[in-house]
Amino acid sequence: MATKTEPGNYFEDFTLGQQIVHATPRTVTDGDIALYTALYGSRFAACSAQTFARDLGYPRMPADSLLAFHLVFGKTVPDISLNAVANLGYAGGRFGAPVYPGDTVTTTSEVIGLKPNSSGKNGNVYVRSIGRNQDDDVVLDYIRWVMVNRREPVSEVGEASIPDLPGAVPADELVVPFDLPNGYDERMQTLAGSAHLWGDYEVGEQIDHVDGMTIEESDHMLATRLYQNTAKVHFNQFMQKDSKIGRRLIYGGHIISLARSLSFNGLANAHAIAAINAGAHCNPTFAGDTIHAWSQVLEKMELPGRSDVGALRLRTVATKDLPCSDFPYRGEDGKYLPNVVLDFDYTVLMPR
Amino acid sequence: MATKTEPGNYFEDFTLGQQIVHATPRTVTDGDIALYTALYGSRFAACSAQTFARDLGYPRMPADSLLAFHLVFGKTVPDISLNAVANLGYAGGRFGAPVYPGDTVTTTSEVIGLKPNSSGKNGNVYVRSIGRNQDDDVVLDYIRWVMVNRREPVSEVGEASIPDLPGAVPADELVVPFDLPNGYDERMQTLAGSAHLWGDYEVGEQIDHVDGMTIEESDHMLATRLYQNTAKVHFNQFMQKDSKIGRRLIYGGHIISLARSLSFNGLANAHAIAAINAGAHCNPTFAGDTIHAWSQVLEKMELPGRSDVGALRLRTVATKDLPCSDFPYRGEDGKYLPNVVLDFDYTVLMPR
Amino acid sequence: MATKTEPGNYFEDFTLGQQIVHATPRTVTDGDIALYTALYGSRFAACSAQTFARDLGYPRMPADSLLAFHLVFGKTVPDISLNAVANLGYAGGRFGAPVYPGDTVTTTSEVIGLKPNSSGKNGNVYVRSIGRNQDDDVVLDYIRWVMVNRREPVSEVGEASIPDLPGAVPADELVVPFDLPNGYDERMQTLAGSAHLWGDYEVGEQIDHVDGMTIEESDHMLATRLYQNTAKVHFNQFMQKDSKIGRRLIYGGHIISLARSLSFNGLANAHAIAAINAGAHCNPTFAGDTIHAWSQVLEKMELPGRSDVGALRLRTVATKDLPCSDFPYRGEDGKYLPNVVLDFDYTVLMPR
Repeated sequence: MATKTEPGNYFEDFTLGQQIVHATPRTVTDGDIALYTALYGSRFAACSAQTFARDLGYPRMPADSLLAFHLVFGKTVPDISLNAVANLGYAGGRFGAPVYPGDTVTTTSEVIGLKPNSSGKNGNVYVRSIGRNQDDDVVLDYIRWVMVNRREPVSEVGEASIPDLPGAVPADELVVPFDLPNGYDERMQTLAGSAHLWGDYEVGEQIDHVDGMTIEESDHMLATRLYQNTAKVHFNQFMQKDSKIGRRLIYGGHIISLARSLSFNGLANAHAIAAINAGAHCNPTFAGDTIHAWSQVLEKMELPGRSDVGALRLRTVATKDLPCSDFPYRGEDGKYLPNVVLDFDYTVLMPR
Repeated sequence: MATKTEPGNYFEDFTLGQQIVHATPRTVTDGDIALYTALYGSRFAACSAQTFARDLGYPRMPADSLLAFHLVFGKTVPDISLNAVANLGYAGGRFGAPVYPGDTVTTTSEVIGLKPNSSGKNGNVYVRSIGRNQDDDVVLDYIRWVMVNRREPVSEVGEASIPDLPGAVPADELVVPFDLPNGYDERMQTLAGSAHLWGDYEVGEQIDHVDGMTIEESDHMLATRLYQNTAKVHFNQFMQKDSKIGRRLIYGGHIISLARSLSFNGLANAHAIAAINAGAHCNPTFAGDTIHAWSQVLEKMELPGRSDVGALRLRTVATKDLPCSDFPYRGEDGKYLPNVVLDFDYTVLMPR
Repeated sequence: MATKTEPGNYFEDFTLGQQIVHATPRTVTDGDIALYTALYGSRFAACSAQTFARDLGYPRMPADSLLAFHLVFGKTVPDISLNAVANLGYAGGRFGAPVYPGDTVTTTSEVIGLKPNSSGKNGNVYVRSIGRNQDDDVVLDYIRWVMVNRREPVSEVGEASIPDLPGAVPADELVVPFDLPNGYDERMQTLAGSAHLWGDYEVGEQIDHVDGMTIEESDHMLATRLYQNTAKVHFNQFMQKDSKIGRRLIYGGHIISLARSLSFNGLANAHAIAAINAGAHCNPTFAGDTIHAWSQVLEKMELPGRSDVGALRLRTVATKDLPCSDFPYRGEDGKYLPNVVLDFDYTVLMPR
């Protein structure tokens, strides 16, 4: 009679090249989209209105790119990060086919790197995770690495195998899910909420997104359960009360979605995210924190053969309990300021 | 390089006759309807069951009238009331085509009045806002006025232009979205939850709706984000902690929906709201407040050419932390009692 | 002019054999399913993915069995338990046709027993409630009994009529809504999250479901409103602050759903609940409590003519603020331990 409970994998359970099919495929519905709106107040028009989505050349209104990200991420948790100490980074994230209501997303991962830490207590696991829809089209393909505990500490650690991490996703690898054969006229700009198009942004430009959003325990737990993310630290106050921090930690992806939603004020025409180039959850967040955000344009990219849409590579930084009018980021020592909670490097698509 | 962030309009930005197309059209789905039920526990049968809605002559189950109201209202916030001090009143609200799942609502406003206040610090802006569906049918047409800050105070204020505000919407202007060619038999009354029909109500009659509902921070923020309402005071505790009141304010429309939902117990056959005649948010509400409500029948209206359905003009009053068995309203000085939070004058449709 | 408000029934209002058609039929949608996921984080694959549900032989993805239970239960509250002191037990619950998005559930009850309590203040009401879909197919048929206050205490109580309560639902009365003509291969087991099938479980086996979930006020109220359950104790803090307990009580069904959701870790292939044999809400739960759960296999049942699916009769016990590694249940005195909040006896269906 085997133990029926899944304990999650520990560092020593992973092998290089290991292929994992994650449990719990997930059909996305109008219900998920409504909840996403209720959780973040997102206003990007392509994910808010059928009419607008169709005018952008989508067959129908897609789910927010980040909802797809959270669902793909959530599935990997029971196998990859249930015993994780920290979520260390993201790289090479490319969004493919948009997710439409009715689509079912299934996720697989490959272990692409293993780095035992010298403490002998844990190690870093690098995985490339791919979410696919029911037609086997790639929805999202990304790399993340996490520090995972060992089941048993060891005194002598083995060799590290650290993968070559890709830099920012180049323009010719971006999938552009919409097109504007009839242009993007004043009416569409008005409905989208801004007349600032791709050509109006400059590299280096900084935008304070002004607004703030306070997080409640119920909000982040509803979100994280919606994504079927099972990381214990988000849900179990009885356990967390005895942790060093004493509280439930908020899922880092919840902060990414809040920051993206706040970024509407300044980036309203950024209708889709095409790539996640890098990301760090610099400091933990807790219920009661108020999140603000600012963005900087890192790069302006023309897209091959496309005069209707361009890409902006952005850094969006989120803070807790600190407005962003002076763009808080790193201290003189190069370290993130204590109120900086997210440093997110991603690429958005915007009409030209 | 222009500032990309929208600061919202100040009093001096508005001009009489100004036409505004608001951003972010919004497709209503089954997801929104489920959330509306979860947020308010509404039980009116026409918005709860396809079968019942069809028996009422609807082609299919519509969204609650107030969900349409909140979506239309929410869209106007970034342009009209982002810098508002107070939401002063409503008038002439008429519901038209019901909103069905799949419909996309777009909102426009016209500035119909401007009244600079003598302080020189702010003024009242009167707008007529119209929400239309994808077929350009009017979903809701209503007037509201708000006190909006000036960007810069002035010492000499200009002339006021105050519009003639309509009184209660007359019977012949009400749109009746359902009909009962086969009557409204005992089975339908049972399923609706009450045998009290239009003919059973008397002008002046007062109904204590008995039940109470406590509000949590997460609830009102989920609701207000669902409506894509961006008013900062509802969401940003970091900012609000330094305000006179020290707390997040609850969106007034959240109270309207709670009161309407509580009113089911006593008005179960009031299947749709046809008009919003007037309304005042008499006192602010905060998380932790428990809302009770009572109603008075102000007027009984026959509808032209209709023997199956009648209209009741109602006043529904909501309170915080005060049960309504003795119908609390105004003090001897004519002012609203401090626990009265809503005075809502509206017209419902009820089988005869 | 009759009082329009429904006060709910008191013990003396019930008669043996009384038939009650409950108000507010309810159409289940994708929105309800998404909310159910957000509220409990449930991961059973048949209710998470269209593709998986179809591979199990469902025509499309059904709603969770317990969502159907809550909707049926919720409808009975205004008539049966609005004036209840306690929800005493369940018996003979059989799930029939699965509920699919778009289905409308209507509930009726028959009073099958009445037991006046010797205090003269209240009595136990036994009802058999049946939820049916729009095609009149039975969705759920179950017995519950509740202690209901009398309107007026009496000094002499009448005779009791206590129904014969059925034992556990036998195998030949279970409805099996899915089938596996092509077997249940490794791929399906992987996607479901476990390779432990019916044959792997042994009678007496105990499973600690390990994870814990903390409840917030907003969560349980969202859930209970979603089910249109109107019991005042869940929603009205103004009233509850003066009760002996001083707080809002959490709807017992919310705990059932949390326990079932936690039970995924150990019972991932239990795709549907076929029967509710018995159940007790042993102690009250409040916001802030962290729920853990464990299960014991009470019985293994072969299903007549079915080699593809078997049934497991389970006891799932939920606790508050007490992990379940040593399977807490009853004390030496036979009473439930104070942290045990649910003792749920039900039957699940699992591939063989």
